[in-house]
Amino acid sequence: MRDAHIAAGSLSALKIVLVAPRNPLNIGAAARAMSNFGFSELRLVNPYDVAFREARSAVKAHAVLAQAREYATVAEAMADCALVVGTTAISHRILEHPLRRLELGGKLIAKKLAAAPVALLFGSEKFGLANEDMSHCHWLMRIPSREEHASMNLGQAVAICLYEIIRKPSTATAIPEAKRPADAAHLERITEFLETILDRSGYVHARVEGSTRMKIRRLVRRLQLSAHDSEIWMGMLRQIFWKLEHRE
Amino acid sequence: MRDAHIAAGSLSALKIVLVAPRNPLNIGAAARAMSNFGFSELRLVNPYDVAFREARSAVKAHAVLAQAREYATVAEAMADCALVVGTTAISHRILEHPLRRLELGGKLIAKKLAAAPVALLFGSEKFGLANEDMSHCHWLMRIPSREEHASMNLGQAVAICLYEIIRKPSTATAIPEAKRPADAAHLERITEFLETILDRSGYVHARVEGSTRMKIRRLVRRLQLSAHDSEIWMGMLRQIFWKLEHRE
Repeated sequence: MRDAHIAAGSLSALKIVLVAPRNPLNIGAAARAMSNFGFSELRLVNPYDVAFREARSAVKAHAVLAQAREYATVAEAMADCALVVGTTAISHRILEHPLRRLELGGKLIAKKLAAAPVALLFGSEKFGLANEDMSHCHWLMRIPSREEHASMNLGQAVAICLYEIIRKPSTATAIPEAKRPADAAHLERITEFLETILDRSGYVHARVEGSTRMKIRRLVRRLQLSAHDSEIWMGMLRQIFWKLEHRE
Repeated sequence: MRDAHIAAGSLSALKIVLVAPRNPLNIGAAARAMSNFGFSELRLVNPYDVAFREARSAVKAHAVLAQAREYATVAEAMADCALVVGTTAISHRILEHPLRRLELGGKLIAKKLAAAPVALLFGSEKFGLANEDMSHCHWLMRIPSREEHASMNLGQAVAICLYEIIRKPSTATAIPEAKRPADAAHLERITEFLETILDRSGYVHARVEGSTRMKIRRLVRRLQLSAHDSEIWMGMLRQIFWKLEHRE
């Protein structure tokens, strides 16, 4: 009997990705926690060879380890996933990604698992995830450990994340979203620029121009850009526009 | 800064009691998880001597281990506590004690800690808590693992219980997700196209190329594109790219 709030079938949709793990005990511990909570898909990116071989001999989670797959790069390990979440111990340093506490992150992952594969990335014992690894992630998730001693053992971090995903949520209340959204004027300028560029590129045909503008406007609104990101997109579009004009 | 839902002063009121632990790695792992979450009081009942000595040499949680105290019996180890809770992997066999899932148990413990010392007991790796040990407990608590593989690693079990006690239930709020999201392979193709276009447009300078790629990758991930929209963006970018190439 599964008493989790996600269906048993969804558990195999979660891919636990260990990036460059060094210690066989940690690989074994991650596999055991997966087995305890009913997850089966373990993926290893560029593991230390000896560690993977030694971990395979661990008896406690042999089914998970026997099925574990190796990948050369992070990109390959999560190519089939619709959501990629990285884990980090960092809370105060400014990160380039949205950072969610495990309580919320676990809930979002559990929800997504019903519809699509999700990758959950853990970095190496010593260095965590590299910036390059994180750049593949949609957002980052943090176990609420103390700032004075935030870095957790890899096997324990995996166990806690999986527990949060399978446990039954209790009463929840709202937390505010951090970032200031782009205002309508900004979005409209982005829309106009994009439309002009597409027009110059031959994407917009005169015959359907009217409806295309609305399509583009809706498309831009759906991005739900932050004020910060909208500036970056404006800069990019301005440069592309300049280039297209400059060549005429 | 502690962001737990129990006050920092209450954390020292929780006594983690390991009964007859055999493996120094597990004692070290328990101490490390305690340090990660701000708990300080570790008590060992009749530990395997060598294990305790070896664990003390672990550097990651030396403050907790240096203060750890040894006891000959369970009764002595929790004599000062107003609430004694035992942990078990057993869910279906009839137990003599009230059995609570961790979600509720953790909440009750967190509440009690504000007023009085609480002991949380973990049995040995091989046998768990003996009936004699359990007889000292007010109630038992179970981590919701699978019945087919319920027995958890000691260090991981301690970590999960402590996490449940310190976590904030209020930080878990759902964000509605309507559409099927774009998969990672699609997002990476959009990233590559956009980068190429920006490169051709003179937006990307050779000097900063490496970090720009990651910035673009993150920027694209933050869009949280649906599968449908990602196709539209690909079409647009392909056309812009074609136009830029065509003019060279």
